[in-house]
Amino acid sequence: MESKISQGNLYDFYGEMLNEHQREVYEDFVLNDLSLGEIASDRGISRQAVHDLVKRATKQLEEYEAKLHLIEKFVNVRGKIKQINNLCELDDGEDYKKAMDEIKDIANDILEEL
Amino acid sequence: MESKISQGNLYDFYGEMLNEHQREVYEDFVLNDLSLGEIASDRGISRQAVHDLVKRATKQLEEYEAKLHLIEKFVNVRGKIKQINNLCELDDGEDYKKAMDEIKDIANDILEEL
Repeated sequence: MESKISQGNLYDFYGEMLNEHQREVYEDFVLNDLSLGEIASDRGISRQAVHDLVKRATKQLEEYEAKLHLIEKFVNVRGKIKQINNLCELDDGEDYKKAMDEIKDIANDILEEL
Repeated sequence: MESKISQGNLYDFYGEMLNEHQREVYEDFVLNDLSLGEIASDRGISRQAVHDLVKRATKQLEEYEAKLHLIEKFVNVRGKIKQINNLCELDDGEDYKKAMDEIKDIANDILEEL
């Protein structure tokens, strides 16, 4: 299976596309970090059924990302915002004008991306 | 029907979720600005069929946005990036330090949003 971090990211973006039962089990496994066995026992279904559900839901979420690339876009924008943040961390006396120009370039890159 | 601008936005974000036939007709109508009659005649289907297809496809795209709110998020981020851009347009001699602090605040807002 995918790493839980990546599954969490997929869920943050596309989780609303799953049905309620899928969401509950997926949350238990990925966000609440319960084991397959714990979830199975809580819900009176087999461990295998939980495993299959999480696997299928992950595949479904991955298909959304493969089509829409929205996580990729957001991660990209997030990286550029962090660059802007770093450029704002100048000590007094450094060249603000130059930093401003760089920030403007990055901001324009982001606008093109969105 | 929705305005074409809003339909274009929906299509930019979620168009890949439509099937190929839907995409072709939707593009002709929304992006290439052909009339329902022109599309109907090009494709040998009725004007009503084109109308219904565009209407159903729009509804489908609106349902994605209602669940995922990604256009809303992007529009929001785009507005904040424009604020950053404006803050970079200082004339020499103005208070760069203050502008930098404001940029940093906006950048942090964006990171929380994403």
